[in-house]
Order: sequence, then C-alpha cells, then structure tokens
Amino acid sequence: MDAIDVIVTKRERRELSADQIAWVVDAYTRGEVADEQMSALAMAILLNGMDRREIGRWTEAMIRSGSRMDWSGLDRPTTDKHSTGGVGDKITLPLAPLVAACGAYVPQLSGRGLGHTGGTLDKLESIPGWRASLSNDEMLAVLRQAGAVVCAAGDGLAPADKKLYALRDVTGTVESIPLIASSIMSKKIAEGTGALVLDVKVGSGAFMKSVETARELARTMVDLGTDHGVTTVALLTAMDRPLGRAVGNALEVQESVEVLAGGGPADVVELTVLLAREMLAAAGVTGKDPADALTDGSAMDAWRRMIGAQGGDPDAALPTAAETLEVTAPSSGVLATLDAYGVGLAAWRLGAGRARKEDAVSFGAGITLHAKPGDAVREGQSLMTLHADDPARFARALEALEGAYTVTGALAEPLLPLVIDRITA
Amino acid sequence: MDAIDVIVTKRERRELSADQIAWVVDAYTRGEVADEQMSALAMAILLNGMDRREIGRWTEAMIRSGSRMDWSGLDRPTTDKHSTGGVGDKITLPLAPLVAACGAYVPQLSGRGLGHTGGTLDKLESIPGWRASLSNDEMLAVLRQAGAVVCAAGDGLAPADKKLYALRDVTGTVESIPLIASSIMSKKIAEGTGALVLDVKVGSGAFMKSVETARELARTMVDLGTDHGVTTVALLTAMDRPLGRAVGNALEVQESVEVLAGGGPADVVELTVLLAREMLAAAGVTGKDPADALTDGSAMDAWRRMIGAQGGDPDAALPTAAETLEVTAPSSGVLATLDAYGVGLAAWRLGAGRARKEDAVSFGAGITLHAKPGDAVREGQSLMTLHADDPARFARALEALEGAYTVTGALAEPLLPLVIDRITA
Repeated sequence: MDAIDVIVTKRERRELSADQIAWVVDAYTRGEVADEQMSALAMAILLNGMDRREIGRWTEAMIRSGSRMDWSGLDRPTTDKHSTGGVGDKITLPLAPLVAACGAYVPQLSGRGLGHTGGTLDKLESIPGWRASLSNDEMLAVLRQAGAVVCAAGDGLAPADKKLYALRDVTGTVESIPLIASSIMSKKIAEGTGALVLDVKVGSGAFMKSVETARELARTMVDLGTDHGVTTVALLTAMDRPLGRAVGNALEVQESVEVLAGGGPADVVELTVLLAREMLAAAGVTGKDPADALTDGSAMDAWRRMIGAQGGDPDAALPTAAETLEVTAPSSGVLATLDAYGVGLAAWRLGAGRARKEDAVSFGAGITLHAKPGDAVREGQSLMTLHADDPARFARALEALEGAYTVTGALAEPLLPLVIDRITA
Repeated sequence: MDAIDVIVTKRERRELSADQIAWVVDAYTRGEVADEQMSALAMAILLNGMDRREIGRWTEAMIRSGSRMDWSGLDRPTTDKHSTGGVGDKITLPLAPLVAACGAYVPQLSGRGLGHTGGTLDKLESIPGWRASLSNDEMLAVLRQAGAVVCAAGDGLAPADKKLYALRDVTGTVESIPLIASSIMSKKIAEGTGALVLDVKVGSGAFMKSVETARELARTMVDLGTDHGVTTVALLTAMDRPLGRAVGNALEVQESVEVLAGGGPADVVELTVLLAREMLAAAGVTGKDPADALTDGSAMDAWRRMIGAQGGDPDAALPTAAETLEVTAPSSGVLATLDAYGVGLAAWRLGAGRARKEDAVSFGAGITLHAKPGDAVREGQSLMTLHADDPARFARALEALEGAYTVTGALAEPLLPLVIDRITA
C-alpha cells in the first residue's frame, strides 16, 4: 500500500477499497502516513465525497484505531444522545439523569467546547468538585450507582479521530459530511451504547445552516449507526434562536436544575422530554414517561446521584460572574429576531467559551435572556443580562450582538419549528 | 491573512486574490504555512482549478520567492527551450549550440531526471570533466564565450517551487495543469530568457498522455510567458515512440554529436532544426538557417566551446556499459509498435535513471534502437541493444519491454505526427 495511490484513487473520484481505508487510517495513526498526505486525502474526500460503503469503512477504521467499550454485562439497555452543538444547548444535563430515572443506562462520553457553542464538560465542571476524567472502572461504577454518567473520552477511544480532527481543524477540511459523520459516529459506536439519538441542530447558531445539509448529515449518521448494530434515530431541531434562556456554563447548569425540578423554559423542557422518549424507545425500554419523572422528583434524584458520584456537590452554590450589564429594548414592540449565532458569539466573548484548547473558560460568564422571539417588549426593559468577570469584555460582546436582535411590530420571519424532521433507519 | 481562509476560498471554488496568493506562497516558503496546509490547498487547486489571473499571480509569487536573472547587458537576444520530458529526448544538447551558432544567446537552467524520462544534466555529466554547477558569473562567462550554457539552477531561483514540488510529489498533487505550468514557467521566467519555445510532449512516454491535456498545458504556459513579457511559443510533439535511436545518458550524447556533425536520426534532426527556427524567430534573430549551421560545422564548434567552457573534454571517450544484450525480432514483418513508456522504463531499469534524488545514474546504461516503428524487420535480427553495468538488470528491463514492441504485417495504428500542433500568443 502507498499513500499516494490512496490519495489519487479519491482524487480521481474512484471508490476507496476496504483495504485502502483500513491501511491509510492505521498508517496515519502510527505516523507512517504523513500529515501532509492525510490533509490532501481529506481535501479530496471533502470535494469528491465518499459513498455509504466508504463512510462505513472509514468509521470502522477509526473505531479499530482504539478500544471499543462494552456494557453488555449490565442488567438494563444502554442509550445515549449526541447533539451537533448549539447555543444554550444544555439538554444533556437534564436528559441523562431523566432517562436513567426511566429505566435505561446512559453512558455518555462528551467533549469540551471550542468556538461559539459550549461544551457539556465545561458546563458540568462549573459544579464545585465535579470531575470529568474517569477510568473505565469508575465510569461503570457511576453508571451502576446513578444510571447515568457523563465524562471525558479517554485517549484510547478512536485515537485516529482525535489526530485527524486536529489536522482537519487547521487545513480547511472540517466541512465534509462523510468526515463529520464518521468522526461523531466512530466515538459514539466505540463508546458502546446500544441505542443512540442524534440531535442535529439547524440554523445560524448550529454547524449546519440549512435543513438540507442537516438532513444529509443525519441520514449519513443514522445509516452508520444502523450498519454498526446501534439503533439510531435523528431529530433535526431548531437553532435559529438560542435554546432556553441561559447561555454560559454555570447559567446553563442552573437552568437544567430548574428543568429537573419540574420548571424551566418550555422549549428546553419540551426537547428534553422528546429526546428522552426517543432514547427510551430506541433502547426498547417502556414504562415510566419522562414527563412524569420530571415532576415526581426521580429525575432530580438521579441528577444528584450522578453529580455526587463524580465528586460534585449538587447543593453547592454555582460560580457567578463579577460584573453584569443589561441590554435594553430600544423601543416598544415585539422581539422580532434573536439570532443564535450572535448570542453564542457574545457569550463566547464574555468568557463562556475558549479560543484555543488550552484556554480556561469562565464558569460564571454568559447571557441570561429575558425575552425570546415573539415576546412583547417595552422600551427600556432588559432584553438580556450579560455576565462577565472582566467588564472590559462587554464592548466586544455588544459588537457581536449588533443586528442579532431587533424589536419591530411583529416577528420578522417564521421561526423554525422546534423539531423540524425525524430521520430513522 | 490566515492559511485556512485561503484554503477555504479555493475549496469553495472562489478566486484567490493577488494578496492571498502572494501571502500563502511567501508564508509557505518561510515555513509559516505548514506542509499539511499547503498540500490541502494544492489538492483544492488540482480539483477546482485556477483561472488565468490566478495562475499568473501564483507564478509571480513563485518567481518573487527568489531572484530573477537579468541578461539585458548582453549584446544579442536570449532565447531558450523547455521540454516537458520524453524518452530519448536529447534535443537540448544539439539545439543550444545550434541556436548560439545562428546568433542568439541560450542561457538554459536545466534539471536532473527522476523516473523514466532522463535529465539533460545527467546526460551532459557523462562527458568527462563537465560540471553542471556554475555561479552566475561563471554562467555569464560561458554564455559570452560559447553563446550557450546549460547548467543547474541554483537554490536562489524560485525556492518556493522547489519546496512545493517536493511536497506535491508525495501528496498526489502533481497532476494539476495550473501547478505544472506555474512550476515550469516560474523557473524559466526567473531564468531571465527573453524568448521561450516550449516542447510539450504527447503520448505514452510523456507526462501528458492526450493531445487535449497537452494543448491545455501549452496554452496555459504560453499565456503565462506572454503575460510576463517573454515571447513564448509551444509545439506539441510526438512521444508515443522514443525520439531518435539512443536512450540513456552517454548514448544520447553520442547521438547528439552525430547530429551536430551533420548526421543523426531524421526525427532528431528535424525536431532540432524546427525548434531552433522557433527559438530564433521568437528572439527576432534572422540570418543563418539552423539547417546550414549543422552542416557547416559552426554548431559543432559552439558545442565544443560550450562543453570545454564547463570543464568537459569534447574529444574524450564517453563511458560505456560493461554488458550488452540484444533483443531480437520474434518473426519477420514490420515493427508495428515501439512504446515510448516501455522503452523509457526499460532504460531506467538498466540504470539510466534514478528512483530517488540521491541515487547515482549509470552513464553507459540505456538502449540503442535498431528499428523504429514502420521499419521492415527479419526474424532474429536485433531490434535493440540493451546496455547495463550489471547484467542482473536485464531481466527486469525485459519485463518492461514485454508488449512494448510488436512485429506484425503493418503499423498497428497511425503514429502521431512529429509536430502535432503549434500554440502561440
């Protein structure tokens, strides 16, 4: 096998064989295929595509680069959810304990945020004492104890994906549906979950800006899961405006706890319950309805066990930012637009996100929204509160918000429905 | 400027601006843009193309990465030829002194061979004492003394091209007409010649297998030369069969000397005279016809001065290989095919070429052809003599020749005309 042959095969729009894909992914992981060869191949894949068989082989090779977890010794089915990321998307936090409370195990390996969408681990780390890194044995122990565990993926899981993702990030080769789908699914399949629900976000605040590309990504991932024996369903959900009213790490934990207490914003509650029902159905678990588990305290109990089992204190006060600034309505009328990307970028600039992997996030930073699109507002009322540790950050956050919200006589254009589509095998 | 922005611009089929191209080529040369970023960009260029303006900017950036030579102080015009490479293509050897004998200066920077086509410097180095490396002052002195100089390009000439070519060679990104054209033309423009004739080879033994791609490459290079103030003409010439009867370093020098003495194979003589007329016409030099300079001894005189000025002894015996093997006709009839690629590959395996840059070539190795396509042959007569220092090389050379020649009742298919097309500004 020769790297140039593999590159030229895809460059000339021919199908990569199982042997070629297995070899090139393995050789790249071992350092035998150089970064400059893999980036040329990634660009050829991005521009010329891969078919379903090739994407399956690529995903398989990424899984085989590391270990695959196995939960078959547990007494209940496993099920998980993956979101492609959005602004205010804290759904994993209430969802994992909620599904555990309804009778399935949720073994979730998650990530940190980079760019304008937050990361689940960053949010949970705002809880005093909580730690993201667990050994496989610790992960199993938390799962048995709480029914759900959310922790960082170890180095042994799809190391080829880790290396390739870092390369794609600096070579303009991120935006390839076959590479995005295989990156996500190799980790989720290696995680060992028996069922998987994908929340593919659509809109300005999401990676996928159009329903068409989101549907293609969802279809590709559902096919991959199905081909690998994981019952997989995808929902396309709205990310034209932020989800819920809190954007930022500790702010989103607070909102999640409200949902687990039976309250919280309607959209967060609705999506959490819908996704929980999908996760349970995909795992074949029937019985308790998730809506009931939010009101009877059982989901909150699972949350407290889950946080506690990972060293966190569910009763501790959450970090708050030192400074706040109100953004007020320029006139009376209706909040016509509230752009997810603008709000996400502003929260990121306030300190909620990181520009480079090695940066720290500010747990208290972010935005609290006091109005959502369609709400009537009065001139001078606060539309949102900005939170930052350093008041010098407010100016650039306000720049990001310029044009991101408008107050007029009515909604500018119809919002996306919360759930746009549902993709199944 | 950011490498990812430049890559994404071309990935999305947008035009690269003058600033983007100048920056990325310069930053790559300085090591600020990484190999894996440049290879992704090269693949995007290969698959999405560049228009005439972009190719001009790219070539300009490559030229500016180093120094540009200037021959404007000379008393006669300069003119040069570049061949895209073929089997038995020794034309530069008789051509450069021939054009000098007719009144123009030929300042040629040339290269070594890699793969199945030989390199002009390798051929000349088979002459005892001759040296390829000259300083700029030495180059000028040889030019004044002999009217022609053929030597190695220094490190100061288009260093970006040198670095980029080595990268393309290992990343499957060689076969891009914009990148091939800008690589060739950046060096030829930086060389400072006032006029340029391009010999674009077409056929199995050439880089361009089809007339269509050869014409596109020729057109691109002629446009580039014209846009940079170099009078440029291209001929598309046949490389479906070898040129002349000698393939290999010293063997080709011997054949070149025969041409300079007024003899030699008809195709080599014809192409040499045609290219000489084009070079002189492009430089605006009229007077002596090249056909006359081959018979009156003036081209031979220029050759002897040129070789002598670079330390070579034009009267010294040339190296010969230790062993020979005859390849005989399997039956009587007509030599129907003689595939240039098969013959080139066989000569390379006999030791005439190198697999890696650091390999040495065997000066005596190669092939002498005793029949050309269309010639009548008798069963058992020698079709060609193989020359090698090590007889162990014959077996693999014979493998390369399997199917490369056939003896039947008539020519299998019409040969390409020696000159297929002529492309001008």
